[in-house]
Amino acid sequence: MKRYRMDVAYDGTAYVGWQVQPNGTTVQQAITTALATLTGQEVRLHGSGRTDRGVHARAQVAHVDLDTRMTPIALQRALNALLPPDIRVNRVRTTASDFHARRSAISKEYRYHIWNGEVLPPDIRHVRTHVRKALDTERMQCAADMLVGRHDFASFTANANGVVVSTVRHLTRLQVRKRGHTITIIAVGEGFLYKMVRSLAGWLIRVGDGAAEPEETRAILAARLRTADVPTARPEGLFLWRVDY
Amino acid sequence: MKRYRMDVAYDGTAYVGWQVQPNGTTVQQAITTALATLTGQEVRLHGSGRTDRGVHARAQVAHVDLDTRMTPIALQRALNALLPPDIRVNRVRTTASDFHARRSAISKEYRYHIWNGEVLPPDIRHVRTHVRKALDTERMQCAADMLVGRHDFASFTANANGVVVSTVRHLTRLQVRKRGHTITIIAVGEGFLYKMVRSLAGWLIRVGDGAAEPEETRAILAARLRTADVPTARPEGLFLWRVDY
Repeated sequence: MKRYRMDVAYDGTAYVGWQVQPNGTTVQQAITTALATLTGQEVRLHGSGRTDRGVHARAQVAHVDLDTRMTPIALQRALNALLPPDIRVNRVRTTASDFHARRSAISKEYRYHIWNGEVLPPDIRHVRTHVRKALDTERMQCAADMLVGRHDFASFTANANGVVVSTVRHLTRLQVRKRGHTITIIAVGEGFLYKMVRSLAGWLIRVGDGAAEPEETRAILAARLRTADVPTARPEGLFLWRVDY
Repeated sequence: MKRYRMDVAYDGTAYVGWQVQPNGTTVQQAITTALATLTGQEVRLHGSGRTDRGVHARAQVAHVDLDTRMTPIALQRALNALLPPDIRVNRVRTTASDFHARRSAISKEYRYHIWNGEVLPPDIRHVRTHVRKALDTERMQCAADMLVGRHDFASFTANANGVVVSTVRHLTRLQVRKRGHTITIIAVGEGFLYKMVRSLAGWLIRVGDGAAEPEETRAILAARLRTADVPTARPEGLFLWRVDY
């Protein structure tokens, strides 16, 4: 029995998310089924974290324990042959037996892509959130700067009153970048709360289109209470971009 | 009654092509139906030319005669509200009554995108042709240079023995560009034969992967006969990129 690390990309459009759940197909399920077909074993696949319905991954990381004589490259190719084309295994490698995709992660990067223009190009409609109203990225960056650091992000999560023990997180980078009609919000941190990146994006979009002032950000953060002031931005634009160990 | 020019983009994945035909949905059909809904008129939409099943357009051009009081911008927005998200009208403008989307065109540009790497990223799988074997773009450009100019392209079309009167065309540019894992073939000319761009791409891929020599290009061209030496490359990577008037 050896532990394998897998780097996985997916177009989340057709999935209810990463994690196995009762209704709808998940990415974790699809890979688990492919692994079972390949090895004849019932395996348990651990991801670095969940991604929501419709959210994509450029490099989700997972680990699994397998008893197989296949080489990592053969395993990768066989998985890609079995999986649907909207899920791809970019790399498979053996790893230390104490490596854990979720617990060993020290930092995660998410990228949220907005198409800021009148008409959303049809070929990238699955991977951009469409915002017609002109966004001022300087205002957005100004608000973003107030969010960087160690804070209680209860105002920027969806289930602050739920199972989560602490809503304090350390956001190490929150950058707003514009290239042509695409505005990308880059969020890096040790860990993120449920729907936190989409909540940050939702707030930054409101600041960018003039519905809110950058200066209001401090009060929203200090309130430590989720209200309608912070909308959850749509999932299409969101990618889990990389996980560092 | 005024003549309108429309610039249209589409993801061709779900369509049997541009042109109305008995089986399957076409892009022309979808726009014609939307125009009929908007104006209550039976209209005839003329495109700059056909695109095949699964082929995309960044800027297809069409014209239509309409009796409407809507402004071009209102027409564009109403069409985009009615059309599915894989078809977008980028611009509508009134034009001279003798403008003809097909006959007035003086030049067309197509781009053929290849993903040359082991794993095709899932989010762009609809808009890249996947070629795993490493392609040598210098060899491809060498072959491409022999194809530029006014030639009989009978060896690079699918129905040379059909209804087409002449298979002579003037190819003004055929460029092979590499950016990361994406190789793009840019083809510009006054006009193109049926499946000509995909045939050119099919040949250049064979030259690039070593199955054929660049020097063989002249003999293939001179033969003026389509054979299995020239495969038709898959449609996913092809975009009608622009039409000049």
